[in-house]
Amino acid sequence: MLTPFQEHNYNFAKKCFDDVREMSKDGIGVSRQGYSAMETKVLDYLKNIGQELGLEIATDKAGNVWMTLPGKNRDLPALVSGSHADSVPQGGNYDGLAGILAALSVAKWMKDTGYVPERDYTVLMMRMEESSWFGKCYVGSLGLTGQLTEKDLALKHRSNGKTLAETIRECGFNPDDLTTGKPVVDLGKIAAFLELHIEQGATLDSSDIRVGIVTGIRGNFRHKTIKCIGETAHSGAVDKQFRHDAVLAMAELAYKMDCYWDEWLRKGADLVFTIGVVHTSPTSAIAIVPGEVSFSVDIRSLHRKTLEGFHDLLLSEAKKIGEKRGVKFEFDDLIVSEPLEIHGELSEHLYKSAQAAEIKARRMPSGAGHDTVVFGKLGIPAAMIFVANQKGSHNPHEEMKIEDFLQGAEVLWTAVKTFPVNGIK
Amino acid sequence: MLTPFQEHNYNFAKKCFDDVREMSKDGIGVSRQGYSAMETKVLDYLKNIGQELGLEIATDKAGNVWMTLPGKNRDLPALVSGSHADSVPQGGNYDGLAGILAALSVAKWMKDTGYVPERDYTVLMMRMEESSWFGKCYVGSLGLTGQLTEKDLALKHRSNGKTLAETIRECGFNPDDLTTGKPVVDLGKIAAFLELHIEQGATLDSSDIRVGIVTGIRGNFRHKTIKCIGETAHSGAVDKQFRHDAVLAMAELAYKMDCYWDEWLRKGADLVFTIGVVHTSPTSAIAIVPGEVSFSVDIRSLHRKTLEGFHDLLLSEAKKIGEKRGVKFEFDDLIVSEPLEIHGELSEHLYKSAQAAEIKARRMPSGAGHDTVVFGKLGIPAAMIFVANQKGSHNPHEEMKIEDFLQGAEVLWTAVKTFPVNGIK
Repeated sequence: MLTPFQEHNYNFAKKCFDDVREMSKDGIGVSRQGYSAMETKVLDYLKNIGQELGLEIATDKAGNVWMTLPGKNRDLPALVSGSHADSVPQGGNYDGLAGILAALSVAKWMKDTGYVPERDYTVLMMRMEESSWFGKCYVGSLGLTGQLTEKDLALKHRSNGKTLAETIRECGFNPDDLTTGKPVVDLGKIAAFLELHIEQGATLDSSDIRVGIVTGIRGNFRHKTIKCIGETAHSGAVDKQFRHDAVLAMAELAYKMDCYWDEWLRKGADLVFTIGVVHTSPTSAIAIVPGEVSFSVDIRSLHRKTLEGFHDLLLSEAKKIGEKRGVKFEFDDLIVSEPLEIHGELSEHLYKSAQAAEIKARRMPSGAGHDTVVFGKLGIPAAMIFVANQKGSHNPHEEMKIEDFLQGAEVLWTAVKTFPVNGIK
Repeated sequence: MLTPFQEHNYNFAKKCFDDVREMSKDGIGVSRQGYSAMETKVLDYLKNIGQELGLEIATDKAGNVWMTLPGKNRDLPALVSGSHADSVPQGGNYDGLAGILAALSVAKWMKDTGYVPERDYTVLMMRMEESSWFGKCYVGSLGLTGQLTEKDLALKHRSNGKTLAETIRECGFNPDDLTTGKPVVDLGKIAAFLELHIEQGATLDSSDIRVGIVTGIRGNFRHKTIKCIGETAHSGAVDKQFRHDAVLAMAELAYKMDCYWDEWLRKGADLVFTIGVVHTSPTSAIAIVPGEVSFSVDIRSLHRKTLEGFHDLLLSEAKKIGEKRGVKFEFDDLIVSEPLEIHGELSEHLYKSAQAAEIKARRMPSGAGHDTVVFGKLGIPAAMIFVANQKGSHNPHEEMKIEDFLQGAEVLWTAVKTFPVNGIK
């Protein structure tokens, strides 16, 4: 059973998703490169809808599009909601677009029902959030908040070799405007930023709770290349007690960390652990006891203490196994990305909005970063709604159910409707 | 304290090792390619010593050199001892050469002390045992026993591209003589074959027992590429319960097999287990839960039952882990190399010879094959003596102590002296 809000937006949202998929399809997936003619085409299509709804439309110097439904008191800072219009190459249709269409559905609902909000409500459609082409993420939101650097703009496209600056210029914007260190819009006029996004994991899709309220964004502790150095030996002639087998040492470390991970989860930790890349040396062979193996490690958690603790455990376990087996683990520099605490009160406001709308929701972490991070780090209240999604993200097989999307959008609408006049600090 | 035999041969052996190292040195190691001018040069040097000792010298059609000290009864089949003159590229000086010089030391001792053996005693110096250049091992002994094929001779040199046939021809021998399926010498005239060789592992070097009597040659069960197929996922956004991580599954399998290996060793099994090569897919990345990993497995034992049992355990453990973790282990074809039982009575004769000479010796397996295998498989009594060696084999750092070598050579001498007139069947 759909609610009136969901009923009203069902065909609208479905048509928008279908139209954008159609215009950006690329083989089995969609491709909407940031600052490309395709991204502009998608934004133009969405601006057209905004125009039909009578929204005030402005494009900032970074190319992001702001579509505002005027509120009763135009001096109050606006409530902003949206996401990014771009996608990864041959990606899915919902990563980014769902957040824009949720925000737009709320605007349409207000317009169509004649609801005038207390403060301005703005649908923000951002450019280039994905790092696939230039290796830099959040370019649209970093640009509008004045956080891009000359170095960022010198990054080259992975296939055509053009710089990000050239690409932005060809798209019709002046890259020089984006490296002044100053925001291109007045950030003081943003009361809060709300972003709906498909979940990139499987937690929501595995139960009947289809909406998540994000409590924080996981940071990570990473090692690109850890080397385990043992000793090569003849695989037939050298008995176990004389071996210093790098692969079996790495396997023991991986297995032990996997067991600790289970233990920490049972104790309630927020933690994921990944060894994504493993390679023995180019001279490794079936009949040689491996003297070396390299592997990556990615530890993520909402909590810095968990990251530190699990990383310490990795180091101490490696030391212990190294001593026992006569091998040495060599760690490259630790790369740290801090966890981001989502604005607590704003997140709680979203959770209460779900309860008010009688939509089941669970509090949950976000494993990856989003444009929300960019606003949050600047002290702007920013929070996220997740919607169930099948088959992961960043691939053509993303599969979001329109019913789930509409539940998330209704939580957003409820949060907009009940947003305090004095804002949330 | 050296025995008279050891004292007598000390300088002789040392000089021969030094001379051959000097003539074949190649950077920090030695390089003596089979059927090369270098191998011929080494053989000529050793033939020269045989000539000085008054041995009867013959070269067979495969280029192997037979140097015989005539016995009292020349109708009896000869006792043959020797090894190969070639080495791997930039290898050590002792792999192969030690067996030739041990056999030659025994001949020298007999000549110098005026000892005439009951039957002919022949020093056999073989060509090309190493597979490094053409990918085929035992070429000299397979050639003399009539077991080379056209296919073998068509193998190409790994750098200059010449075929094995061309290489043999350039060395002065007719490759057509070697593929008739018939031995190029009368194998009936070999009473037994005894080969001294450096141990390629560290067992002997780790204790004060410096001589080994080989009880068998390990066979192996191999998989070149086992694939573990899981599911790629976002390393931050997908929680543990939804992952099908191929690397952690592989690590659990490796760790469990490592523990079983310990268990089997405690129960007295002869067993070695190696995962020599491990690679995640080319698209693996630090921030992606790995959906695939490939690895090799090499299981070796003296006993077929152990090979079968441990391989069965690998399969069942992989199945169990696969089911638990939602991943699939795909095994490529099993490659089997049968274990070779060393001639029991001849091996016992060597062991008793060590006891008689009051030289400490231990019975032990050989992890790798040797020319001895070629004779043994044809039903010729064949056995091996191992000598302690540091730093493995097939590398420039082989380090055999001349004292250890002389202990092994004295076991050989004792075995020759006490070899039964009626032979060993």
